[in-house]
Amino acid sequence: MAKDDKRPYVGVDLGGTNIQAGVVDHNHKVLGTKKVKTGADDGAEAVVDRLARTIEKAIDKANLKKSDVGGVCVGAPGTVDIKKGVVVNATNLRWNDFPLVEALTKQVDLPVTLDNDVNVGTWGEYRVGAAKEFKDVLGIFVGTGIGGGLVLNGELYHGHYFTAGEIGHTVLMPDGPIGRRSLENLASRTNAVNLLINLIRANNPSEVTDITGGDLTDIRSKVLAEAVQRKDALTLQVMRDAAHYVGTSIANTVTLLSLPCVVIGGGLTEAMGEPWMKWVRESFEKLVFPPELRRCKVVAASLGDDAGLVGAALLARDRLSMD
Amino acid sequence: MAKDDKRPYVGVDLGGTNIQAGVVDHNHKVLGTKKVKTGADDGAEAVVDRLARTIEKAIDKANLKKSDVGGVCVGAPGTVDIKKGVVVNATNLRWNDFPLVEALTKQVDLPVTLDNDVNVGTWGEYRVGAAKEFKDVLGIFVGTGIGGGLVLNGELYHGHYFTAGEIGHTVLMPDGPIGRRSLENLASRTNAVNLLINLIRANNPSEVTDITGGDLTDIRSKVLAEAVQRKDALTLQVMRDAAHYVGTSIANTVTLLSLPCVVIGGGLTEAMGEPWMKWVRESFEKLVFPPELRRCKVVAASLGDDAGLVGAALLARDRLSMD
Repeated sequence: MAKDDKRPYVGVDLGGTNIQAGVVDHNHKVLGTKKVKTGADDGAEAVVDRLARTIEKAIDKANLKKSDVGGVCVGAPGTVDIKKGVVVNATNLRWNDFPLVEALTKQVDLPVTLDNDVNVGTWGEYRVGAAKEFKDVLGIFVGTGIGGGLVLNGELYHGHYFTAGEIGHTVLMPDGPIGRRSLENLASRTNAVNLLINLIRANNPSEVTDITGGDLTDIRSKVLAEAVQRKDALTLQVMRDAAHYVGTSIANTVTLLSLPCVVIGGGLTEAMGEPWMKWVRESFEKLVFPPELRRCKVVAASLGDDAGLVGAALLARDRLSMD
Repeated sequence: MAKDDKRPYVGVDLGGTNIQAGVVDHNHKVLGTKKVKTGADDGAEAVVDRLARTIEKAIDKANLKKSDVGGVCVGAPGTVDIKKGVVVNATNLRWNDFPLVEALTKQVDLPVTLDNDVNVGTWGEYRVGAAKEFKDVLGIFVGTGIGGGLVLNGELYHGHYFTAGEIGHTVLMPDGPIGRRSLENLASRTNAVNLLINLIRANNPSEVTDITGGDLTDIRSKVLAEAVQRKDALTLQVMRDAAHYVGTSIANTVTLLSLPCVVIGGGLTEAMGEPWMKWVRESFEKLVFPPELRRCKVVAASLGDDAGLVGAALLARDRLSMD
């Protein structure tokens, strides 16, 4: 894959809130970055313009010129038709069938490619991160929501409708009440926080009250991690349950796809660290089938905050240097 | 794929109880078959000898000679290393790491290839059956157990450890009691029958008592289908629950892999027919994500009893005519 191409590429993380662009060299070192507000309310044309300017500023900050750079890959939130270069559906941006590759190529005058943001993060871990020894990988990212990406036979797997990897929406409680059936609704940070708030308001004692000074309106992953470190019984129970559901879904995916490696990332995973990973692995090992699949490596993501940028830049190189 | 090769191929269904061989022509017509007892107790060498003789008899019955035939594919129960041609693990046969391709090639003097029996059945449906318009397919077979096979990007997907497709062992009740967690333990015929027996013995009235003449020791799929036809409330409840779990697991797989087609086969599906399929589809459509994936076709298998033989013969042609 493009081993002779030593040019840097630009990876872009297009989110509902922020646009982040990074120039990444052939040793996957980040040479320069730029971050701006997405401003989705201004409409798609304005966002494309902002994307182009952010890419140009990141190239500036890397002390490079456009002609030094091989191309751009954008990781977009939502369903992406990679063949047409179209964002089929991105709720955060309120985009439907928007031809991003065409529009951005015109604005930025560089080769552009496109994929889903979670796929791009998974690609980064597969190419240079925690999964780099393996050809078949599930990437699962646990934060406010739960997303997933699949590399099968050394390629990103998109599926017929380009929506593959939606592990957060697989059902773990087929007989549960509505809103308590899917992995995301059972194990995301959003769910953990809502559960904790309800439990604390129902007079269950918790260190979370102390850590937040009683303000329960902005409980972040770090608060949860701190409460676990203090061995707060309530938070421990909520987080162990969440880890159990994540471990179950990972077991199901490995059972179905016979995977050698699962990489777990996302804000909650990063904040919680090893106790969380251990609980996830315990449920995984208990439930995967056949038991030989316990050999599958279930590991924490290694690229952290840069996974999106680095993954996108690597995908840009892997796709565009062929052209 | 081997379009110019008009030779017939032999498909073999190697089960724990029976060996069945069939000669199949290039229009996937079965020209001759032969069935014998497997006799796994006699040891692997004896089974290989029996396989060779059964293949030869099927060729005889098709009025052909060995030299007319392009080769053989065996569908084996268990984990198969298709690269090495080895049966890694087959509980029914009590085989571990048995080099079947090498052993059978010597005995039968024809090119031999090998795959898992459920994969072979899925391949048949993909190539000439209910899934023939699609490149990404889940085959799920519901009978005494529940097995699955995956075709992704037009190829059988085996996974790193060659165990892919084990949908029956995915967990739908992470908090359920042991033995009531996996799809197979919630929705196989074995489970439905055990549930019914327990319910009938606990004095719940059921047409099943009438249909079987009170002998509950041998309730087959046809008995369940007949009870459903008679609108027996108890059997309807048990079978609707089973269909709900099957539909949930199918939804999870389609959500994860963004599939355009799922084929459902197996003894229970064949006996139950349309009411069962309708119940499965209802749960599938309710739970799949995103809702656009309701477009995925969830259809009954079309090759019936011949799926194993025809699938294996097609796989033999697709693999061996390249040689």
